[in-house]
Amino acid sequence: MAASDPIRIGLLGFGNVGSAVQRLLTEGGEAIERVTGQRVEVAAALVRDPGRHPEAPPGLLTTDFARLRDDPAIGVVAEVMGGVEPTREYVLQLLAAGKSVVSANKQLLSRHGDELFGTAERHGVQLRFEASVCAAIPVVKVLRESMIVTNVHRIDGIVNGTTNFILTRMIQSGATYPEALADAQALGYAEADPTEDVTGADAAAKIAILASIAFHTRMRLEEVSHVGIDRLDLADVEHAAELGFSTKLIASAWRADGGVAARVHPCLLGPEHPLAAVEGAFNAVMLQGRSIREVILEGPGAGGEETATAVIGDVVAVIGTQGTGFLQHDVHYRDVGRFPPERLQSACYLRFTVDDTPGVLAQVAQQLADHNVSVAQVVQHAREDGVHIVILTHRAAEGDVQAALAGVAEKPFSRAQPVLLPVLERSAPA
Amino acid sequence: MAASDPIRIGLLGFGNVGSAVQRLLTEGGEAIERVTGQRVEVAAALVRDPGRHPEAPPGLLTTDFARLRDDPAIGVVAEVMGGVEPTREYVLQLLAAGKSVVSANKQLLSRHGDELFGTAERHGVQLRFEASVCAAIPVVKVLRESMIVTNVHRIDGIVNGTTNFILTRMIQSGATYPEALADAQALGYAEADPTEDVTGADAAAKIAILASIAFHTRMRLEEVSHVGIDRLDLADVEHAAELGFSTKLIASAWRADGGVAARVHPCLLGPEHPLAAVEGAFNAVMLQGRSIREVILEGPGAGGEETATAVIGDVVAVIGTQGTGFLQHDVHYRDVGRFPPERLQSACYLRFTVDDTPGVLAQVAQQLADHNVSVAQVVQHAREDGVHIVILTHRAAEGDVQAALAGVAEKPFSRAQPVLLPVLERSAPA
Repeated sequence: MAASDPIRIGLLGFGNVGSAVQRLLTEGGEAIERVTGQRVEVAAALVRDPGRHPEAPPGLLTTDFARLRDDPAIGVVAEVMGGVEPTREYVLQLLAAGKSVVSANKQLLSRHGDELFGTAERHGVQLRFEASVCAAIPVVKVLRESMIVTNVHRIDGIVNGTTNFILTRMIQSGATYPEALADAQALGYAEADPTEDVTGADAAAKIAILASIAFHTRMRLEEVSHVGIDRLDLADVEHAAELGFSTKLIASAWRADGGVAARVHPCLLGPEHPLAAVEGAFNAVMLQGRSIREVILEGPGAGGEETATAVIGDVVAVIGTQGTGFLQHDVHYRDVGRFPPERLQSACYLRFTVDDTPGVLAQVAQQLADHNVSVAQVVQHAREDGVHIVILTHRAAEGDVQAALAGVAEKPFSRAQPVLLPVLERSAPA
Repeated sequence: MAASDPIRIGLLGFGNVGSAVQRLLTEGGEAIERVTGQRVEVAAALVRDPGRHPEAPPGLLTTDFARLRDDPAIGVVAEVMGGVEPTREYVLQLLAAGKSVVSANKQLLSRHGDELFGTAERHGVQLRFEASVCAAIPVVKVLRESMIVTNVHRIDGIVNGTTNFILTRMIQSGATYPEALADAQALGYAEADPTEDVTGADAAAKIAILASIAFHTRMRLEEVSHVGIDRLDLADVEHAAELGFSTKLIASAWRADGGVAARVHPCLLGPEHPLAAVEGAFNAVMLQGRSIREVILEGPGAGGEETATAVIGDVVAVIGTQGTGFLQHDVHYRDVGRFPPERLQSACYLRFTVDDTPGVLAQVAQQLADHNVSVAQVVQHAREDGVHIVILTHRAAEGDVQAALAGVAEKPFSRAQPVLLPVLERSAPA
């Protein structure tokens, strides 16, 4: 392709993100040319119903996928349509047709990464995915390109803005989960069906992607256990706040003992933790590694323009590295063992709802002691549903803590399933 | 070069950073090969006195610059020796010899950027400089590669760990500046001669580099006004804390009204500002732009391994983009106007040290009113050196505030030069 021909960009989808990509690519054309030496133009956007996008430039929209796939002048396609099918099929065909693809689709990548990256490699094209995690926060790029030799051993992130908004609401105004969810929906921070967000499934897909990059292994979505905030009790958020902790939905990935693990869980964060201050719909990711200590990236985790910014960063990266091997090779993942979550160590917040009878605390404490769980702090609250015994433990293996909880749950004085929220650790000092 | 030949890397310097680069490149060789498809090996390191580095691998050290410059198999050289001369001369010769250079040297780049980048472009090689700003925090990469179309309009950073350590000490333990500096020196956070750090000169070089990238213009070091913390009075840090603000040395760059500006100044930060919580020797940079709202990058801003991590990220980027035009083009800077600092608008903290006489506050308030500066809050403190009238203004042009201060300074009741500390604004909500 002659340097004077513009590089043609295709779009799969023309919703919030797609139209922002088109607009920013047009407005930013001069800056892109200055940086890459190449002009770009948006050639075509695949939509189901062109009538729903009256604002689109004339001639841009098409309902014919072949127009993108078979146009030899289209070098890069941005997939911003979402969903798993037929998106997967389209992306596979585009890669096979020799086009690099930039995707904002965390579900697609975390479910079908192997197949997609394998196809990209076989056809010598790129598949980039910055926008699939935390929108404009360039955490994928930083992990893939800046942290190659840093041996990141831990990632902790607030990667879902909806749940962080809801939790901030619960902490700040004492709203229950259903009340805070209703507020989030009214304000446009949560969808009508919030399941993906509030169950932690969305965060699980994101941490699967980040763990795969950081640990050079293919972490599949189904390997990531996730507990969301949909069963989180306001009482625990309040008890935690009294002890000086904020409650956040944290997506974590670890490398330890030659294995890796990832999960999503509501956690308690002390005021000194860098993620404790991340409020509202913002996202933040903390990377820990020997030679970087800790690096934190924070910003808006959603939004049309924010996501489009990440898509364009990837489009520019594809253009800038065309014909080279840079970062083509991350399908060469290693086989790395997994370590079971019950071996995770952390301090834990526990809440037991029990009868108001003398001797109960002693029995709870004995159960913990029997499983080698050491108590740091105890607070009791009389509540309508019984006495809440709130215990902060010292560092312990979660398997041991779970075993102790199971023991307490069987006791006749136990009125509800005990609650366990890990306290998020920070290995590096500021 | 055949894919099976390793890429040879040269080092200028073998101090803290250089030896860490050598070690991490060796340890991380497998990861680099996985990502780029290329093996790397450190071929030679230029030092003045090999006897001072007994830990170096045999045969690595050389005192002969020509061994690096004239070895055709050396494709990339990492400049980690610091200083302006002879470093500048070495780098120019390496670029002219067709070698890409990665530099950790903010003074060199902010003083001689034009010459160095021009030489790199003429010879078709790269000059990368992630490590010159904030060590392992990949702010240069993010600005250059991820934020190309985002129109970043404002950068605020805590980019000097020494001063942030000193200020944290002053805030948390009520130490005076000389006491906190002595502590920092004793703990290794400040050098024996701390001038570069405490006067803001170091931060000025860093913000000059960041502003140049963000605004696609060449911001020279001498254009960046800087006020450091060396004349900061503990009284002001304490008065600010009483009003709920922390005091930080902030390096800022703005684009507004078709012009750009940059400076370094101690500022007040409200508790909701994302940089307010950055303590100790950590660095953080906040980028604001329409399509990203705000993105914050935080981490350790210094250290041998941390800086080496950034150097290696650049080395890998050079290898991964060899032979392409990616980001070769940022010498094509635009001519952009400057706007004068007196037009900057912000709320301000003012402290007047005055005689304890009735009517003084009225006269101070009148001076402010005469210059259209509106008062938000007033607190008076009786101190040994006089009464401190502390005023928090509403948003005002700094030129107007300065004029009012000059008026007050001339009054017979004025016992000391008035103090002005801007309150750092945040245009985007979380």
